[in-house]
Amino acid sequence: MRTRLTSLLIFCLFGDPTGGPAWQKTAPVVLIVYYSESGHTRELAGAVAIGAGSVKGVEVILRSVSEVDSSEVRSAAAVIVGTPVFNAAVSPQVQAFVNSWPFDGTMKNKIGAAFTTGGGISAGEELVQVGILHSMLVFGMVVVGGEDWTSAFGASGVTNEGPFHKGPIDKVFREKGQALGKRVAELVLRFWAGNPQ
Amino acid sequence: MRTRLTSLLIFCLFGDPTGGPAWQKTAPVVLIVYYSESGHTRELAGAVAIGAGSVKGVEVILRSVSEVDSSEVRSAAAVIVGTPVFNAAVSPQVQAFVNSWPFDGTMKNKIGAAFTTGGGISAGEELVQVGILHSMLVFGMVVVGGEDWTSAFGASGVTNEGPFHKGPIDKVFREKGQALGKRVAELVLRFWAGNPQ
Amino acid sequence: MRTRLTSLLIFCLFGDPTGGPAWQKTAPVVLIVYYSESGHTRELAGAVAIGAGSVKGVEVILRSVSEVDSSEVRSAAAVIVGTPVFNAAVSPQVQAFVNSWPFDGTMKNKIGAAFTTGGGISAGEELVQVGILHSMLVFGMVVVGGEDWTSAFGASGVTNEGPFHKGPIDKVFREKGQALGKRVAELVLRFWAGNPQ
Amino acid sequence: MRTRLTSLLIFCLFGDPTGGPAWQKTAPVVLIVYYSESGHTRELAGAVAIGAGSVKGVEVILRSVSEVDSSEVRSAAAVIVGTPVFNAAVSPQVQAFVNSWPFDGTMKNKIGAAFTTGGGISAGEELVQVGILHSMLVFGMVVVGGEDWTSAFGASGVTNEGPFHKGPIDKVFREKGQALGKRVAELVLRFWAGNPQ
Repeated sequence: MRTRLTSLLIFCLFGDPTGGPAWQKTAPVVLIVYYSESGHTRELAGAVAIGAGSVKGVEVILRSVSEVDSSEVRSAAAVIVGTPVFNAAVSPQVQAFVNSWPFDGTMKNKIGAAFTTGGGISAGEELVQVGILHSMLVFGMVVVGGEDWTSAFGASGVTNEGPFHKGPIDKVFREKGQALGKRVAELVLRFWAGNPQ
Repeated sequence: MRTRLTSLLIFCLFGDPTGGPAWQKTAPVVLIVYYSESGHTRELAGAVAIGAGSVKGVEVILRSVSEVDSSEVRSAAAVIVGTPVFNAAVSPQVQAFVNSWPFDGTMKNKIGAAFTTGGGISAGEELVQVGILHSMLVFGMVVVGGEDWTSAFGASGVTNEGPFHKGPIDKVFREKGQALGKRVAELVLRFWAGNPQ
Repeated sequence: MRTRLTSLLIFCLFGDPTGGPAWQKTAPVVLIVYYSESGHTRELAGAVAIGAGSVKGVEVILRSVSEVDSSEVRSAAAVIVGTPVFNAAVSPQVQAFVNSWPFDGTMKNKIGAAFTTGGGISAGEELVQVGILHSMLVFGMVVVGGEDWTSAFGASGVTNEGPFHKGPIDKVFREKGQALGKRVAELVLRFWAGNPQ
Repeated sequence: MRTRLTSLLIFCLFGDPTGGPAWQKTAPVVLIVYYSESGHTRELAGAVAIGAGSVKGVEVILRSVSEVDSSEVRSAAAVIVGTPVFNAAVSPQVQAFVNSWPFDGTMKNKIGAAFTTGGGISAGEELVQVGILHSMLVFGMVVVGGEDWTSAFGASGVTNEGPFHKGPIDKVFREKGQALGKRVAELVLRFWAGNPQ
């Protein structure tokens, strides 16, 4: 994905693909924030970023929950949050991150989405995804799931049950992650870019 | 709220308030569908319709679940679904209505929202609202809650516990319903009207 | 699983394995009720019944939602409900079944559990399982999940995504079903048998 | 509620009301753990403790999340967890507490219940209660709600919307808290006391 700097250069040289003059606005940002211990959620976050980055006209910022800056949250057009499943809930770190968001209307109408990884099948992945979406609704965000009904609530990966073994997450889950990133980026262009808050 | 006919007349005489020429497109439709037994949910549906109807440039259609036509679902820009709480779930009638929606991509990116009435406080109202939103996510809809954190998941009314007595639903709940309708209509204009599917 | 008649015979001949004299009480009943269209949920229901039936001292009754009798619901010590995923919710038939339960305290303290089958991974299976448990809580039931954290909310089967193909449901899911039935039956003996309502 | 010491004295003098000789076992413990900032959740926790303490034969331990000892969690027959609503989720402190529970089967078959306080009506109270119950199911706990359908998911209090004002929480909520504590204590006696793990 492109950095802010690269994006700025591209805009200065070629103009803003979302239509406005480059000196007036920058590309809308899709911010992807994750917490990861084993690396699985980081891997899925990377897939989400690749998907979002495949859409021309948005800027993608990928951060761990300890790296992300509050100004990045404030200025993002979309926020996609990922966490491992911790006993059917988000990690305390991700919950603390969500609790740090401004409650002054800044988050209102931003697009929100979620992803997660968990050890077993039906072992909390759905509850964590919708849990993140529910929190986003409290902030007035507009929330979406993935590309089709198999990823209705965002994107999830199963890492250690039945046919799913430890190691890199299965292709079926990485594809869901990419599709989620792409969908959110497309919605940002369609719903957000022409309507800066 | 205005009927389709009235809307058409207004558009022919004065042009489309959403910007395009009247003969090219009609106003985007906010479709409100409810099931009601005691009348409480119908009452809240009416409040939602008043709120949506207060926004110029959208057409509001209010239907009970037995009246609504599948073509109305297909052509709506937003669908707001309401049901009484039935044992922490939607009514079977509303579930059957949701199951009747086309699964061919028609619903994708429509805006979705929910409202409900229940007898007691914390007696299933939240679970029903998010349950409707979860189903909408399966269809690829973009879902939103109400105006602020006190109606984060749509709009709900408590009809028979503590300070809330049988009879017309309390003003605090009617106001949430109105605000929900208004918000969805505004989002339709902002996110949808310029981007017909 | 044994029928009521066989159970009665066994009790008359050999006495009640739960300790009391046979003429005083019958074995506590684990009632399994399901709705199935493609046959997948029926198959998982069968696995649940096999698991419950492996526990000596309980009687297992397996019924489709159209066969079950209200007296069977009333007299059961445990009720395990299964449904396919319908757009992140239970089927209208199962919702109607739940809504038919007596609201007079009869269900209070019965043990409740849930199972489901769905096409995709993280495509509503968790939401359906917990949705059933939430409805059971409204009736005052004591609810439990499966044998371990991979079946925390009951038992689920994925029937048509990634490594899971149409046809008989995968062994990993049938084992979860069996373990759920066994666990509920054991809890009935431990928590219920000595404490008839 | 009685302290451990008082309980011990009573048992030594009068015998164990749950049936066994006093020197063989102590009364089963209902452990109530809460996190509170404004004091509302502490107040509701107190009501839960009063309710549990009204049942003869159980010992009640009331702790804030920072006071509770892991040995108290391990030896409890029931754990009732309370938290304010934080953006439709439990507080990070309560999530961290849940994540600290032993995952070695110790929690299995303990009785679990939940309570919460939130500012508004339908503003996350249900989602927090069921969220705690879902986490408990991951640990194999047997979960229950409150006394009737108006407190189906435990006990909740609304602290600052409509007719509910800041200050002591409304009587309707304190009564739900008391009834929850009483119900859990009664279930412990019925389901647990004769069946120590």
